[in-house]
Amino acid sequence: MQTLTVNLNERSYPILIGENLLHQPGLILPHLAQKQVAIITNTTVAPLYLDTLIAGLALNDVKVIPIILPDGEAYKNSETLNLIFDALLSNRCERKTTLIALGGGVIGDLTGFAAATYLRGVPFIQIPTTLLAQVDSSVGGKTGINHPLGKNMIGAFYQPKLVLADISTLSTLPDRELSAGLAEVIKYGLIRDLPFFEWLEQNMEKLMARDTVALSYAIKRSCESKAEVVAADEHESGQRALLNLGHTFGHAIESGMGYGNWLHGEAVAAGTMMAADVSRRMGWLDDKAVTRIRSLFVKAGLPVDAPDLGANKYLDLMGLDKKVEGGRIRFILLKRLGEALITADIPEQTLRATLSETVARV
Amino acid sequence: MQTLTVNLNERSYPILIGENLLHQPGLILPHLAQKQVAIITNTTVAPLYLDTLIAGLALNDVKVIPIILPDGEAYKNSETLNLIFDALLSNRCERKTTLIALGGGVIGDLTGFAAATYLRGVPFIQIPTTLLAQVDSSVGGKTGINHPLGKNMIGAFYQPKLVLADISTLSTLPDRELSAGLAEVIKYGLIRDLPFFEWLEQNMEKLMARDTVALSYAIKRSCESKAEVVAADEHESGQRALLNLGHTFGHAIESGMGYGNWLHGEAVAAGTMMAADVSRRMGWLDDKAVTRIRSLFVKAGLPVDAPDLGANKYLDLMGLDKKVEGGRIRFILLKRLGEALITADIPEQTLRATLSETVARV
Repeated sequence: MQTLTVNLNERSYPILIGENLLHQPGLILPHLAQKQVAIITNTTVAPLYLDTLIAGLALNDVKVIPIILPDGEAYKNSETLNLIFDALLSNRCERKTTLIALGGGVIGDLTGFAAATYLRGVPFIQIPTTLLAQVDSSVGGKTGINHPLGKNMIGAFYQPKLVLADISTLSTLPDRELSAGLAEVIKYGLIRDLPFFEWLEQNMEKLMARDTVALSYAIKRSCESKAEVVAADEHESGQRALLNLGHTFGHAIESGMGYGNWLHGEAVAAGTMMAADVSRRMGWLDDKAVTRIRSLFVKAGLPVDAPDLGANKYLDLMGLDKKVEGGRIRFILLKRLGEALITADIPEQTLRATLSETVARV
Repeated sequence: MQTLTVNLNERSYPILIGENLLHQPGLILPHLAQKQVAIITNTTVAPLYLDTLIAGLALNDVKVIPIILPDGEAYKNSETLNLIFDALLSNRCERKTTLIALGGGVIGDLTGFAAATYLRGVPFIQIPTTLLAQVDSSVGGKTGINHPLGKNMIGAFYQPKLVLADISTLSTLPDRELSAGLAEVIKYGLIRDLPFFEWLEQNMEKLMARDTVALSYAIKRSCESKAEVVAADEHESGQRALLNLGHTFGHAIESGMGYGNWLHGEAVAAGTMMAADVSRRMGWLDDKAVTRIRSLFVKAGLPVDAPDLGANKYLDLMGLDKKVEGGRIRFILLKRLGEALITADIPEQTLRATLSETVARV
């Protein structure tokens, strides 16, 4: 098992990465304020891992309230959030009751937001069971829900007490979800870690074959990056925004196609190709670099052509991005492989060219 | 105009108290991150003060988005919160758009919670127009909404950038609302400020007659108390809970009678008499002290007899209180006039005696 730390003074917390961690309740116990937890999970993950987690906690006299939600991005909304509140209140969960998120990014974001707002804040623990959640969404305290007008529009910055990434849970992950997680892994290489990007070029087959050593390394390196960025800029007043490479385009894809039709990681991959194309048009990336990015996404089983929503629809959806300032969309682009930048100075015709030329004519 | 400060390091903010402050947009402008604001108010307050506020801001090139909600505690819920989000999103409000709460406690709590969670947090300003909001709810960053199973169960600690208490707005306040505000004013005397309690005994007629000097003093002294307590314990891990004198009983009254039927301040007054009765039974207050408290509430036009919900119903509703720990209700009681304490050690028979003997046989 490897241990990393997210350094945020009194809100610092560990990330534990390893195999079979779900079978070790002793890793969780020291982080509970009270021997009562509510485990929030979904109908897909519950049959796989809920009993194991409950059994270990119950053996240690922890009272467990399981809350099982429907599965999918389409349920990351205020109705589902209210289901959590109803269950917490009817079970009389208290300010020292710890919420445990057992699942992927949707479960983590919903649970974190419930924890941030139930009784004005209760402790929570992330147990991510997808690659995407293990390398990205479970770390850093971004929580929230979608709104019909935009993704993650309602939420809070609220840090967990512990992130427990059990690599063994990836054995049951569908291939499509594995690929989606790799999109965020590749992101770290692109924005700040060229050696890692090159390592990924060399080792993508191993990752796709779920080689435990390779996965473990990729998760650790990704979490290190995420922890560093979050520690330096918890509330995204600056550099943290760089983690959103491909996300402004990607969120427009997810929202424009209907939540859940494109997985988040898939939309990020196609969105990153759009960002790379803008970066090329701006003269920062050459054709060869764009091809390398494209090839890596393809190797990872990810889509590289965004859906053709029409440039106007894209511009409209992107105008709702959380990074918009003074009415101007701020883009995360690539200065070169391994270095990102944030800018609002993109000529509209450049943007329109990308939005109409990089899409797939379905 | 008087200026107080809530000291919370980088989140410190001023409380301005005075007459005709709504006519002075210059007090607000320095606190805006961007020349765009959304003013959240209700159908009662809007016709009285919204135009004045908008006009002053518009003269200074501030773009204003007004959001007018239905009035009343019954609307402090997730549906109304969603109305705010819908309006903010459809008007493309950004992370630097400031939300302004123009109204009483319900508007302040709703707006604060919307600000805490819209785009994971945007700045907000409190412009309280009721006495209760000016002396209590607008200061200290407690925000939130009710849930059918309990009051203020969903929310966040989120501090405003400015509190602007324009005493002139109290001229249009209904008598019943003025009295409700006085319940929280009296609270500060009871829990930590005996000289203020005695001042209130001497000056209640002036306050009821809306004497500006007396009101101004009472508001300033209340805000000083609140600011001190909040600065010492922002997230209510200790002493801040003392501000909840009468509130555990009071929330049960409000929820048990249906939100909006008893005003919050009315429920706090009757709830405080219950707390005083328990304190008397514990041997901390003598009959004379209880009578003094009762007389002061009566002078303030407040109810002193709680509704007879039945002891079991009270115990059930109070078991949902946010201060419950390990299944035990924690009560704020009076050690003596001017000093409160928090305890879970109240014999059930004592509590049941209070719950069945201090209520009005309606």
